[in-house]
Amino acid sequence: MVVELISVGTELLLGNIVNTNAAYLSRKCAILGLSMYHQSVVGDNEERLSDTLRTALDRSDVVILSGGLGPTKDDLTKEIAAEVLEMPLVEDSHSRKRIEEYFKNSQFKIITDNNWKQAMVPEGSIVIDNQNGTAPGIIMEKNGKSVILLPGPPNELVPMFENDIFPYLNKLQPETISSSMVKICGLGESYVETQIADLIEKQSNPTIATYAKTGEVHLRVTAKASDEKEAKKLIKPMVKELKNRFGNNIYTTDEAVSLEETIVNLLKEKQLTLTTAESCTGGMLAARLTNVPGVSEVYKQGFVTYSNRAKRKLLDVKKNTLKDYGAVSDKTAKEMAKNGAFITGTDVCVSITGIAGPDGGTPEKPVGLVYIACCYNNRITVNEYHFKGGRAKIRENAVVRALTLLRETILEDKD
Amino acid sequence: MVVELISVGTELLLGNIVNTNAAYLSRKCAILGLSMYHQSVVGDNEERLSDTLRTALDRSDVVILSGGLGPTKDDLTKEIAAEVLEMPLVEDSHSRKRIEEYFKNSQFKIITDNNWKQAMVPEGSIVIDNQNGTAPGIIMEKNGKSVILLPGPPNELVPMFENDIFPYLNKLQPETISSSMVKICGLGESYVETQIADLIEKQSNPTIATYAKTGEVHLRVTAKASDEKEAKKLIKPMVKELKNRFGNNIYTTDEAVSLEETIVNLLKEKQLTLTTAESCTGGMLAARLTNVPGVSEVYKQGFVTYSNRAKRKLLDVKKNTLKDYGAVSDKTAKEMAKNGAFITGTDVCVSITGIAGPDGGTPEKPVGLVYIACCYNNRITVNEYHFKGGRAKIRENAVVRALTLLRETILEDKD
Repeated sequence: MVVELISVGTELLLGNIVNTNAAYLSRKCAILGLSMYHQSVVGDNEERLSDTLRTALDRSDVVILSGGLGPTKDDLTKEIAAEVLEMPLVEDSHSRKRIEEYFKNSQFKIITDNNWKQAMVPEGSIVIDNQNGTAPGIIMEKNGKSVILLPGPPNELVPMFENDIFPYLNKLQPETISSSMVKICGLGESYVETQIADLIEKQSNPTIATYAKTGEVHLRVTAKASDEKEAKKLIKPMVKELKNRFGNNIYTTDEAVSLEETIVNLLKEKQLTLTTAESCTGGMLAARLTNVPGVSEVYKQGFVTYSNRAKRKLLDVKKNTLKDYGAVSDKTAKEMAKNGAFITGTDVCVSITGIAGPDGGTPEKPVGLVYIACCYNNRITVNEYHFKGGRAKIRENAVVRALTLLRETILEDKD
Repeated sequence: MVVELISVGTELLLGNIVNTNAAYLSRKCAILGLSMYHQSVVGDNEERLSDTLRTALDRSDVVILSGGLGPTKDDLTKEIAAEVLEMPLVEDSHSRKRIEEYFKNSQFKIITDNNWKQAMVPEGSIVIDNQNGTAPGIIMEKNGKSVILLPGPPNELVPMFENDIFPYLNKLQPETISSSMVKICGLGESYVETQIADLIEKQSNPTIATYAKTGEVHLRVTAKASDEKEAKKLIKPMVKELKNRFGNNIYTTDEAVSLEETIVNLLKEKQLTLTTAESCTGGMLAARLTNVPGVSEVYKQGFVTYSNRAKRKLLDVKKNTLKDYGAVSDKTAKEMAKNGAFITGTDVCVSITGIAGPDGGTPEKPVGLVYIACCYNNRITVNEYHFKGGRAKIRENAVVRALTLLRETILEDKD
């Protein structure tokens, strides 16, 4: 089964927005085991959209179009698809009712004539309710091919794909696909790839795909089988094997769970409270932890001590430490973590101090040098890192490594 | 002049990466005034890449291909382009030397035979040096059409485009394009659009394009003329008119300058120091300010006071204030800002307290309610906001509004 994407919208051709829909849909189609050879972007233009759709239908089994389902005259996707597939538009009373209800609950109470355009659907098509907007999704089937129309806004497209299109595409195939995401922290991409070279070499079903993230490596294990239970059964031993190889460096096998969420859950489980003490990352670590809803149960406060004076005043770092070893030193990182925990009376404190650049580096202490310390139960671990890249990359890496060190420290605790 | 993009790479078809190159190149081509009707993504496949390039050449004057210039056998872009345009590959001694030098200065000292593939260029093509990698960029001209090959990694593609391709494309046209980016904060998108409806209505040269960002609206003013000086002359009165209409809400007309950078420069200019005191944004405001290199001159420290206890202990917020008015109240925001400035001895302190959700809302204090205060010279301004969207969106909005309030407060100062 070959699938192809057509993204419709002038805003993409002008570069006003990044095509995250295409990346999302591609990833999902890859998980489904569908082959994708082509993606296109076209504007809201009758002739070009029609040509692009015809070309796509010639070479692919399934064509997914996103965007151009709005209520204005410019929005042409549905009209063109209906014309190309020769399935005339008719009013769908169910969709009409949903549009009425949507406006009743919205701050914009007035329905204009335009809006009824969104209740028109190609005759004989499958209509998919839009939980977050007025444009329904549409599946058109003809001559063994499927054309799927999705609304452009990601907050409408993603839930619709998850709930309705993913299962639909999965059913089109004789085999079912299931996958697990094994997320690894604290190990480099090339190390991880070397460790699984033999598995990759002989892989067939399940397969392993590697995704490198800043400070993390994600491995997607995907299996095909006659049903989901069988597919899950095929995945299980491979995930177990990966767990044997990477042990505690695997922080989750759940696609939806982030590193910070794992850590927040771990802190909750162990009933520990946390403080952050940051210099060069300037609040990024705190910001990332507070992405997690419900973090307030374990995370109470953080310090951004950017100046030496702030390190002294707020975190009691000794004047002599700063003078003799400098703000970017293992000694300063240690004092920040130890005093941060002590002053606030929390169980754990992580500290970061380093040179994010572009200025401030010296031959002895170059840009990218970062010290990260973690104080837990009065034991302090401190690590030295040398990160590459620009200011943003160095700061991002420091945050992930701080999260990784924090997690390791709590996990190592045998009390 | 019609331009078209072809992005080459299996990682795009698998959704492993988002196509930010396409967005970047589209934006730049729009600035140049080039028309773009098509974008495609194909994998490293001989037949499909060749077909896609031929189709593009049939309908467009300039085709920009990105990716597939690497040293491995899989990388086919240059080979296919040479074949389609019938310009055989020959070794470029200058590129060969550059590759040698690159490896000399790199941690990977060993050049494999593969690498010399990158020194091969289509006969008669223009070779563009790659400042950040080994694959040179290539411009091929034939039958009045241009095919441009760029390396895939954004850190190689972007500088190459800025330095060499942008001027090349600009010269291809009889007219030169110049543009200014008028960046507005503190006003909503629909308000801004209403205020410039008359300008948009009668626009021809220059034109205005609107870009909505979280808490900001950017207006790009673009003019065409016979030379750059003339184009700039056309832009000037329009930018002046926008300045008349939006006054101090315009924080810059420089595309490269961010809101946080404007504020850091303003603080430097006025020799003011700053502290942040955050609750629901949990360090995001501090992180955004410390994005700016050299911020340490004015930004000394920040507090993340997530719990009530932290608000009391670190920022001296009165127990009774928290009890009588709650942590999310104008009174708490005011005390956080006032005490934050006092305790640290800095000139300005901005505070944020609110309910980011998804839990914690009540009918009186719903999710999205945020108070932001700014204390400067012992005068405190506090505003109440009601943000829509999920946790991430609410937090992001709060940060931009805090930056906006901070800027307004400093600008209003007549001392």
